[in-house]
Amino acid sequence: MAGSTFGNIFKMTTWGESHGEGLGVVIDGVPAGITVDTGFIQAMMDRRKPGNSKFSTPRSEADEIHILSGVFEDKTTGTPISMMVRNTSQRSKDYSEIASYYRPGHADYCFDEKYGFRDYRGGGRSSGRETLSRVAAGAVAKLFLKEQGININAYTRAIGPVSIDEAAFDQAEVFDNELCMPDKAAYEKAVEYLKECMANGDSAGGIIECVIDGVMPGLGEPVFDKLDAMLAHAIFSIGAVKGFEIGEGFNAASLQGSENNDEFCMKEGKIDKRTNHSGGILGGISDGSPIIFRAAVKPTPSISKMQRTVNKNGEEIEISVKGRHDPVIVPRAVVVVEAMAAMVIADAVLMNRCSKI
Amino acid sequence: MAGSTFGNIFKMTTWGESHGEGLGVVIDGVPAGITVDTGFIQAMMDRRKPGNSKFSTPRSEADEIHILSGVFEDKTTGTPISMMVRNTSQRSKDYSEIASYYRPGHADYCFDEKYGFRDYRGGGRSSGRETLSRVAAGAVAKLFLKEQGININAYTRAIGPVSIDEAAFDQAEVFDNELCMPDKAAYEKAVEYLKECMANGDSAGGIIECVIDGVMPGLGEPVFDKLDAMLAHAIFSIGAVKGFEIGEGFNAASLQGSENNDEFCMKEGKIDKRTNHSGGILGGISDGSPIIFRAAVKPTPSISKMQRTVNKNGEEIEISVKGRHDPVIVPRAVVVVEAMAAMVIADAVLMNRCSKI
Amino acid sequence: MAGSTFGNIFKMTTWGESHGEGLGVVIDGVPAGITVDTGFIQAMMDRRKPGNSKFSTPRSEADEIHILSGVFEDKTTGTPISMMVRNTSQRSKDYSEIASYYRPGHADYCFDEKYGFRDYRGGGRSSGRETLSRVAAGAVAKLFLKEQGININAYTRAIGPVSIDEAAFDQAEVFDNELCMPDKAAYEKAVEYLKECMANGDSAGGIIECVIDGVMPGLGEPVFDKLDAMLAHAIFSIGAVKGFEIGEGFNAASLQGSENNDEFCMKEGKIDKRTNHSGGILGGISDGSPIIFRAAVKPTPSISKMQRTVNKNGEEIEISVKGRHDPVIVPRAVVVVEAMAAMVIADAVLMNRCSKI
Amino acid sequence: MAGSTFGNIFKMTTWGESHGEGLGVVIDGVPAGITVDTGFIQAMMDRRKPGNSKFSTPRSEADEIHILSGVFEDKTTGTPISMMVRNTSQRSKDYSEIASYYRPGHADYCFDEKYGFRDYRGGGRSSGRETLSRVAAGAVAKLFLKEQGININAYTRAIGPVSIDEAAFDQAEVFDNELCMPDKAAYEKAVEYLKECMANGDSAGGIIECVIDGVMPGLGEPVFDKLDAMLAHAIFSIGAVKGFEIGEGFNAASLQGSENNDEFCMKEGKIDKRTNHSGGILGGISDGSPIIFRAAVKPTPSISKMQRTVNKNGEEIEISVKGRHDPVIVPRAVVVVEAMAAMVIADAVLMNRCSKI
Repeated sequence: MAGSTFGNIFKMTTWGESHGEGLGVVIDGVPAGITVDTGFIQAMMDRRKPGNSKFSTPRSEADEIHILSGVFEDKTTGTPISMMVRNTSQRSKDYSEIASYYRPGHADYCFDEKYGFRDYRGGGRSSGRETLSRVAAGAVAKLFLKEQGININAYTRAIGPVSIDEAAFDQAEVFDNELCMPDKAAYEKAVEYLKECMANGDSAGGIIECVIDGVMPGLGEPVFDKLDAMLAHAIFSIGAVKGFEIGEGFNAASLQGSENNDEFCMKEGKIDKRTNHSGGILGGISDGSPIIFRAAVKPTPSISKMQRTVNKNGEEIEISVKGRHDPVIVPRAVVVVEAMAAMVIADAVLMNRCSKI
Repeated sequence: MAGSTFGNIFKMTTWGESHGEGLGVVIDGVPAGITVDTGFIQAMMDRRKPGNSKFSTPRSEADEIHILSGVFEDKTTGTPISMMVRNTSQRSKDYSEIASYYRPGHADYCFDEKYGFRDYRGGGRSSGRETLSRVAAGAVAKLFLKEQGININAYTRAIGPVSIDEAAFDQAEVFDNELCMPDKAAYEKAVEYLKECMANGDSAGGIIECVIDGVMPGLGEPVFDKLDAMLAHAIFSIGAVKGFEIGEGFNAASLQGSENNDEFCMKEGKIDKRTNHSGGILGGISDGSPIIFRAAVKPTPSISKMQRTVNKNGEEIEISVKGRHDPVIVPRAVVVVEAMAAMVIADAVLMNRCSKI
Repeated sequence: MAGSTFGNIFKMTTWGESHGEGLGVVIDGVPAGITVDTGFIQAMMDRRKPGNSKFSTPRSEADEIHILSGVFEDKTTGTPISMMVRNTSQRSKDYSEIASYYRPGHADYCFDEKYGFRDYRGGGRSSGRETLSRVAAGAVAKLFLKEQGININAYTRAIGPVSIDEAAFDQAEVFDNELCMPDKAAYEKAVEYLKECMANGDSAGGIIECVIDGVMPGLGEPVFDKLDAMLAHAIFSIGAVKGFEIGEGFNAASLQGSENNDEFCMKEGKIDKRTNHSGGILGGISDGSPIIFRAAVKPTPSISKMQRTVNKNGEEIEISVKGRHDPVIVPRAVVVVEAMAAMVIADAVLMNRCSKI
Repeated sequence: MAGSTFGNIFKMTTWGESHGEGLGVVIDGVPAGITVDTGFIQAMMDRRKPGNSKFSTPRSEADEIHILSGVFEDKTTGTPISMMVRNTSQRSKDYSEIASYYRPGHADYCFDEKYGFRDYRGGGRSSGRETLSRVAAGAVAKLFLKEQGININAYTRAIGPVSIDEAAFDQAEVFDNELCMPDKAAYEKAVEYLKECMANGDSAGGIIECVIDGVMPGLGEPVFDKLDAMLAHAIFSIGAVKGFEIGEGFNAASLQGSENNDEFCMKEGKIDKRTNHSGGILGGISDGSPIIFRAAVKPTPSISKMQRTVNKNGEEIEISVKGRHDPVIVPRAVVVVEAMAAMVIADAVLMNRCSKI
């Protein structure tokens, strides 16, 4: 109930605070027989790790994943897979000051109101480190989906006001540049923009786009568990996400029906669509085209620029948030988006096994 | 599992097809002691009803709500509230043709792939009539929330390319004009736009905005059941929604931290925020400011304009969708958005009772 | 949450009070393509109906089932199946007196404590009529299971102190005598016993046994959702059940391992067990043998014999419960046990589709 | 879905195999502010630990519990509490042989049928070691319940055919003798019985009784989540349990209504019952009297006595189960019963906060 479990059949439960013993995840409902490639899981973890670039926090976190259960002779056994990462590089001193006041843009105040107090060290449960558990679980989901022919790729579509040019799209760049932008020119402009932000003690946001290929038609449940509603829930549960759209998204609002509808056609003896304004989902159910969605990520709230706020005594004060913070979290969130999308699709694949007699 | 239940504690299960015996909803988890005003529920139903304007289908549906259980001497008893509406105005003949082909922009093809066949009459379970059950349940949620001092108001922010001017915002207009637009000038421009669409056998989309006042800080669960993630799920589960954003939403992606953060301040001895870029939710938990979100609605896919598609025999054909369809569903969806938001907030209020010892 | 939903995938939500508009059930998660035989469903309803014998209440209730959704051209469509029965024979006057005091053996006091008040007419939500919804849902589950080769048969094993003689077991008697006892001699003794109870204004309990044939090995989930734990939950949720046991049950407590273990053997090229002390479930998972369980049902608490109790003013009083009550509910509960067992097995069959890759 | 999560609000997810890295549990939904006494939790773990007596396996397992998250400055924070025990004393060699055949009374065959293969080391996920996670979670639930004035005590009521004499009941004995029997004379007879079993290479079962004091009336949800149904589910999910009964239990089946009903009376100005045949629950809701239930535990299936079975090649063979096994698990299961009961009551206390407006 308290919100640390996600999924219906393929289901993860996460735990951990940024400055406790560690963080982890238990995935229940994983079918038996999936080959577990630990190297692949660690590689996903490494894509999320800080310290990959000058635009992420200089904290160095090993984030080594340990599988504690549910795998026997390199195969999933059908029982819960427990995985954890030990915290090693945490300096609690950095955070002691923030116990007494409420950082703008953070959930400090909300946690105090909800629970009466909070674990203030490094954001506690609301730290970005929480997403580490999602990535580990999502990696297992991706291993399952790969065996079904489904692939998920996310990338940075925009950093602040700098967007990629679709005509210049280059998938290789996603792994080649530290901002995960599939357009080298845009990447270079974004670097300039970020340097400026950092010089001012400020931060940036951006947009992540995700493409899911190989999805069979029929995934998703009508009414409340539409596939896009499940994706919206999953992606919006990532801290800092403020918007989600699929296919034409907000642009669909200003199109006419004849512009937005995708005509069906035959292609190599199979039903296909001439366009993909729908983003691969119609009426909440996958239509066989690639699923394409975007998420808007707000600028990192922790900035060294002076800000006004209040403390727990109800006094108005001025603060500069110290500590080692990412000037932009978008590149590190790319793999988190992939992981959450993988959880949703894996769950939908299993649920769909019960649709027909 | 199959997606017809929504909510954790305050929980609805809906049923029904557009051309079956009727549609309905069972709400479980409603606290005992809420005064049930049947007139209020019917008034919510009437706001969703077709035939309210020249821009909605000329089908006349009485949509009279019947309460079958869970209320005794005008109070909720704590047991399930079952409500239903009988179908009365359905003409199955209108739809017989669509059994054989796949309408662009509709879920016909997806349902056939998922279930092997479909109830093709009027869209069956994926008909817009399905939202009727949501409105009835949402009305009960609103009655509960009113007693908690929480109010929810949605309205049309844009029809196609015509947006309201925030400076001209007039709440009274929401109920005065048939497009639910709180800006008379924008409404008049939208009317012209819609007439043009209709003349071309085409349709329009738009944007709905929703404001929730009176929410105490602390609602929402960290990690997966963040209040905004629950709202995203709820709103995206409404057919035709293609985008969802909260507070600054997609705009936040291009702001800097210092622009997007809301500074805390003291106001009449209480903690408040100087701005509300967050849209009332920080780290997934309500921060005490009004919650503000927007949903993008695609243009109605049923258009009389000629479209290409395929039939069940795999032949490419041309069709003109007949029947009585809304040229724009945005105004009728406004109350559905309110209903879904009410369900989420009512559920969060109850869940929050378990946060502290 | 509030307990009116049962099941994980094949899932029912029930509603209704004994003296409201009616009672009903929504089943979600039913696979598409099951042939729906309405006559079979009504026949299940009729087995539960009062007035079948001199040992059940003389109230006459038609209990006609109406299918409102989810079935198209006699097949399940994969969408929710809503069914209801209208209340027709309710005389609220009979019950007006009980609003003011607490009947021994009933939940009146508990409801008042939980909700602050109660719908006192005929027991409201805690009336035995509530099981009507379960039988309708269970009938659909049985139709699904039949297509999988699974059959469920329950019968009366004991009425008060009168038990059947296993050597005299005669399945035909279950439908031939009004006590559903598969042993004519035991039935006749039980009739004498019941007459005596009735003459004294008293009531009787009994034991129901249920056998499930044709279950494939592998159903049930390890740890918390063991198949026997799900059955225990299901059967104990029927009002008046005070005990549940499987296979040897309580008798197993006094056996030694070598007596209670079932040795495996080969039978016609397949793995089988030489005995079935386990009752068809090992480690929470079906082992391929028939599943056999028993439920103890307490004597009807509504008796005309004088009893002491208290009223809402905290005064001690003496009462004789009036109205038309069953002197023994066991025979009418037999079909409810079958229905609940069918729900559990249908759910387990679907869940098991997700066990392997 | 796959059955490793239990509870609605106060909810645990367990993981681990007897011969993997360790076993653990994540509890979500624990209210913030409970004082966590680690010593109390470890003491509960120690009551379950083997090696406490000559009647339990001579394996020595430290079973030291580590709290990894959710506790800050000795208080629960409202976020998930993750706890784990590392496996240290496992000798996988002991079990290598059982990979090839199916032990009578064990789930080996069922796991192979369900998942296609199994982690055969020490029973894997179906090992009794799995209950360790339940005890850790139940200890936290007990800490919460203590603050609500609720206490839970279980003990051994019978070992094989030897039952306690209620007249000789002595609570102190529960902790004083290694069989947890609250009757010294019965304990001594049970010791003789067990010695005989062991001499024959055989094993014994027994009955556990549990009393819950201090429960307020009103806990439990009508219909499917009756408090007794939740307890039945919880207790039946413990491996080796074959029967569950509450209050009069199976005995109620042969009583008459006037014997089984509990009359209400006034006691010190409060409503009370003159007797407690109900076992503290009426209509699925707690009635304020102590809750009393019993569970039947089958004899340990691992015995050294020769047994016939089959191997994976379908050959009939004779085996003697080797390894260090408990001749009776009842005394070690006593604390597991307490733990599961605590989880159910803690969950019901939280759910009940949502019953009234």
